[in-house]
Amino acid sequence: MNIHIITVAPELLESPFSHSIMKRAQDKSLLNIQLHNLRKWAINKHAQVDDYQYGGGAGMVMMCEPLASAIDELQQEKKFDEIIFMTPDGDAFNQHTANQLSLKENILIICGHYKGIDQRIRDTYITKEISIGDYVLSGGELAAAVVVDAIGRLIPGVLNDETSALFDSFQDNLLAPPVYTRPADFRGMKVPEILLQGDQKKVEEWRYEQALQHTKDRRPDLLKGDE
Amino acid sequence: MNIHIITVAPELLESPFSHSIMKRAQDKSLLNIQLHNLRKWAINKHAQVDDYQYGGGAGMVMMCEPLASAIDELQQEKKFDEIIFMTPDGDAFNQHTANQLSLKENILIICGHYKGIDQRIRDTYITKEISIGDYVLSGGELAAAVVVDAIGRLIPGVLNDETSALFDSFQDNLLAPPVYTRPADFRGMKVPEILLQGDQKKVEEWRYEQALQHTKDRRPDLLKGDE
Repeated sequence: MNIHIITVAPELLESPFSHSIMKRAQDKSLLNIQLHNLRKWAINKHAQVDDYQYGGGAGMVMMCEPLASAIDELQQEKKFDEIIFMTPDGDAFNQHTANQLSLKENILIICGHYKGIDQRIRDTYITKEISIGDYVLSGGELAAAVVVDAIGRLIPGVLNDETSALFDSFQDNLLAPPVYTRPADFRGMKVPEILLQGDQKKVEEWRYEQALQHTKDRRPDLLKGDE
Repeated sequence: MNIHIITVAPELLESPFSHSIMKRAQDKSLLNIQLHNLRKWAINKHAQVDDYQYGGGAGMVMMCEPLASAIDELQQEKKFDEIIFMTPDGDAFNQHTANQLSLKENILIICGHYKGIDQRIRDTYITKEISIGDYVLSGGELAAAVVVDAIGRLIPGVLNDETSALFDSFQDNLLAPPVYTRPADFRGMKVPEILLQGDQKKVEEWRYEQALQHTKDRRPDLLKGDE
């Protein structure tokens, strides 16, 4: 999978993609991430990519021309399945979307920064607007990192043990059950007896019941939804 | 504000905190971020911090002892207002939580990795469990970065223009209105006339109507909620 990211702050994205699972995914050539500095397509020698907003108010707006030039140029090299804009007013990102996107070949992600991008770019180029949650960040860079991480780990072969992702929270509309490791007794707090007895069928039943109860307590909305 | 973060992968968090707004917040001493490598509190010379899960199954679990030792030691130096565990089954992070946390003095964030942390640590040490959204990440590091960014930018003085955060999406339960910048005509697509006429009262009315309509279209749930 190829993921291209257009950003005014590529330096923010260096470390999240250079270590741990995302690094391994790239080392194995399962994931190819390319960062593009929007200033490369700036409209003048001052590397300008943003300007004051029409109608006044605080915060700069990312201009049409640099973004349009950048997308046009990248599209000449590759046909993108989705051109995604990271924005708090986009569609809520969830595991379902992560699963869908993990099946794509080529994705282009635009990171907003400052007050946002000119609406005309959203109207004409963007195929999908994604929000990672109901909060505002300094820019779309961390949001893009979150999306890349969530979909990257679902690509077959990226996680060491493929069964691992299947039992994560949300994959079956249930939150994950509690997990325990050694020691069996930590400061008087004991691991549930059933996990120590080696009866795999009982363990699975216990985990399912725990997951179900945990979901009922914390996120009953997940049990209703069925998309 | 002091934010301490315990993680097995501090290298993932280097760049998000070393540039742009988060860097400025630290340079101005408005925000102090300290990363702690959990392996410092490992139980043996192999720097072990995780182990197989009781009951079997894929994925390692972060052990009790290193986390307990780390939290105990950091708590001796500082009283934390919240000890937060980043986990997909936690309470949904939103702008309301970001506002609340931005008023705290000392926060400790625990990043889960692998399959999660031993449930007994969650039961005894954690005061708040936070999820940044309904999806699973490789680890809690990016989630912690998101939380730090969302709350860090709300600390007075961090953003250049303090009014900027007030008009973001969610602060008034409305999504942000569309924004435009020069040129007024881009490839035949024109900026709405009202933004060019200089009547500030009309601009504000237009923005409110646009924000309201946009919220009705995309996120009607925000208009009902009132927490």
